[in-house]
Amino acid sequence: MKATGVVVEYNPFHNGHYYHLQESRNVTQADCVIAVMSGNFLQRGEPALLSKWKRTKMALLGGADLVIELPYAYATSYAPRFAFGSIFLLQAAGADSFCFGSESGDVSVFHETLDLVNSQDQDFQAYVSEFIAQGLSYPTAAARAFEQLKRPLPLDLSKPNNILGFEYIRASRELGSAIQPFTIKRKNANYHDVLLGKGDIASATAIREAVFSHDIEKAASYIPDYTSNILKVEKKEKGTLMSWERLYPLLRYQLLSSSPSEINKFYEIEEGLEFRMIEAMKEAEDFQSFMSRLKTKRYTWTRLQRACLHVLNKIQKEDMHQILDAPPKYLRVLGMTETGREYLSSVKKSLELPLVTTVSKHDFEGLKMEAKTSLVYAQGAVLNGSLAEKEEYNTPPVMIK
Amino acid sequence: MKATGVVVEYNPFHNGHYYHLQESRNVTQADCVIAVMSGNFLQRGEPALLSKWKRTKMALLGGADLVIELPYAYATSYAPRFAFGSIFLLQAAGADSFCFGSESGDVSVFHETLDLVNSQDQDFQAYVSEFIAQGLSYPTAAARAFEQLKRPLPLDLSKPNNILGFEYIRASRELGSAIQPFTIKRKNANYHDVLLGKGDIASATAIREAVFSHDIEKAASYIPDYTSNILKVEKKEKGTLMSWERLYPLLRYQLLSSSPSEINKFYEIEEGLEFRMIEAMKEAEDFQSFMSRLKTKRYTWTRLQRACLHVLNKIQKEDMHQILDAPPKYLRVLGMTETGREYLSSVKKSLELPLVTTVSKHDFEGLKMEAKTSLVYAQGAVLNGSLAEKEEYNTPPVMIK
Repeated sequence: MKATGVVVEYNPFHNGHYYHLQESRNVTQADCVIAVMSGNFLQRGEPALLSKWKRTKMALLGGADLVIELPYAYATSYAPRFAFGSIFLLQAAGADSFCFGSESGDVSVFHETLDLVNSQDQDFQAYVSEFIAQGLSYPTAAARAFEQLKRPLPLDLSKPNNILGFEYIRASRELGSAIQPFTIKRKNANYHDVLLGKGDIASATAIREAVFSHDIEKAASYIPDYTSNILKVEKKEKGTLMSWERLYPLLRYQLLSSSPSEINKFYEIEEGLEFRMIEAMKEAEDFQSFMSRLKTKRYTWTRLQRACLHVLNKIQKEDMHQILDAPPKYLRVLGMTETGREYLSSVKKSLELPLVTTVSKHDFEGLKMEAKTSLVYAQGAVLNGSLAEKEEYNTPPVMIK
Repeated sequence: MKATGVVVEYNPFHNGHYYHLQESRNVTQADCVIAVMSGNFLQRGEPALLSKWKRTKMALLGGADLVIELPYAYATSYAPRFAFGSIFLLQAAGADSFCFGSESGDVSVFHETLDLVNSQDQDFQAYVSEFIAQGLSYPTAAARAFEQLKRPLPLDLSKPNNILGFEYIRASRELGSAIQPFTIKRKNANYHDVLLGKGDIASATAIREAVFSHDIEKAASYIPDYTSNILKVEKKEKGTLMSWERLYPLLRYQLLSSSPSEINKFYEIEEGLEFRMIEAMKEAEDFQSFMSRLKTKRYTWTRLQRACLHVLNKIQKEDMHQILDAPPKYLRVLGMTETGREYLSSVKKSLELPLVTTVSKHDFEGLKMEAKTSLVYAQGAVLNGSLAEKEEYNTPPVMIK
């Protein structure tokens, strides 16, 4: 069986994602679509508004055949790590190709850009190093360096989606893998679009805005019925969808009951950020106000949110390094369709990583981190997290026939 | 000016407390009544249902002239430590005497009991050591030893209030102080009475039951009007009074995001209690259910609740030992009447400990622990604890004219 891979967050699953899944299958002629999906916490340093299990269900209903969890350490990391972990897992799961959305829809542009970046001289490298030292990401630093050198770059590396695409290509080359990159032209939505109303595809950001501030009905034409239903059930059962605001009391408790040196042990807490966090917490009644007090030019909003996640989840520097020092060690199956199950049976013997379907049967550090962060997520969602505890350890993968 | 001292928690202040204050003044012929009062957390390992500031106000309205805070380390400790810290502070504040409630109303019974305990032979000591090793407190172990030896003891040392009285006397002798003990016969209420309706005095336990499960009006005849009003305002402003149930989500988050070895660092976590806590937390949706799962013969309910407090407040063994290794180092004034102010002026120069009225001006470890635990208390009370932060650092003592 031929398999292609996609890298996703589905926060929440919308029509654009549906289109991406269908097109990925068409373009790559795959029998099976494998989605590597973030768990409960996302790359922008936020909790997903629905748990990994509900998002897995949407993914399977929307056209994915197999959902593999991107471990917390990668899912909440900067773009190169996020991309490396994702492509590594797709390759490990036996995908022949992967397919991502882009503005251009032309994968050669990404290759050319990467070639160009790799072939640059010392002047370029000096600029890049300088910009990275200023806190910019590698692609943004590269883009700025090109600007400085007044050389034309085929891809605008200041856009988040282009950065990710660039990093996927870079990761696949780094892995020296036979996995073939494809890209599909995005339809009708930019990542940061906040207004709805552009046909039947809107960005996830715009959909989240609509879902939180108005009624789920307002977003109904941009999301499949199952997304709409799952959101409604969640809102009814838990009062509201998950957000940083729900977790802020726990973050605040963590900050007020810890010493600066304890906070400094957490991942991504550097250069006295612990003191800024403690000061900001004292005055801030909600997460938005906390973040506004924390924000400086030095750090991006996303970088700060990720640091907050690691404090919330009590992820120490050494714990994170231990996991990130080597590629992912397992393939954790969150769900599958009948096709996904058939696919797994067909490749099972040739897979180099162990397949994890029940967490309690394995002892990987990465899975322990998953269990721990899932409990924190659940504790924010409801006062009783016991259900989630059982979910993490005992739930079999979601099966859709 | 002549001063007497009382050791109190006022959770909440009721008619029995009022009677105790008036009688203490009469019996000792004091011009000034000094109350050493626990802060936000109490000896039974519970949060006070009202903050220290509101309880100070009730104390002053009820007849105390000066309220001194019993530091967290002593306030949440077992009876001998609690008593030692309290009597030490009363002596340091210049009290000539102290006065506690008891069933017998006869202080000589306490002296005789202590003499008898101190004069016992090796057989007795062997029994005591054995019972202490089984987890009993010293007075209870002593009481059991007397039982075993079939010797009559003038005081029933199995009753909580007798234990405290016994420990007050023991502490005052240990301190070799001139401070003179008095006791007043309690009226009409046993500590564990849960039913109201015995005249105008009921136990604090019974009053808390009434206040939580019914209406504050039900307790109205057992508490002064100001207690009633303060309780009503609190219930209106915060929805409910403080209890372990409000703090449980934070305790649970602490337990689920920490490793067993991290939890083991906290004070009173011994003999694998950290593992029992983690297991109990997984299944328990509320604090009562958590405690029921945690409870074994080995530990008393109170001992376990105190251990929970130290986990909640992240009080490490070494932090606690650092404070408990020496007597209290300061006198923290929570409030005073005009009489209290005059008294302080008259003794100020002869006091051996510094008077603390504004926490931010001092740097004692004990005060840092107070600030930290106050923030945790406030975070449980309201999602926004910033007010409490300012309260702890900047509030001047409560003044009642």
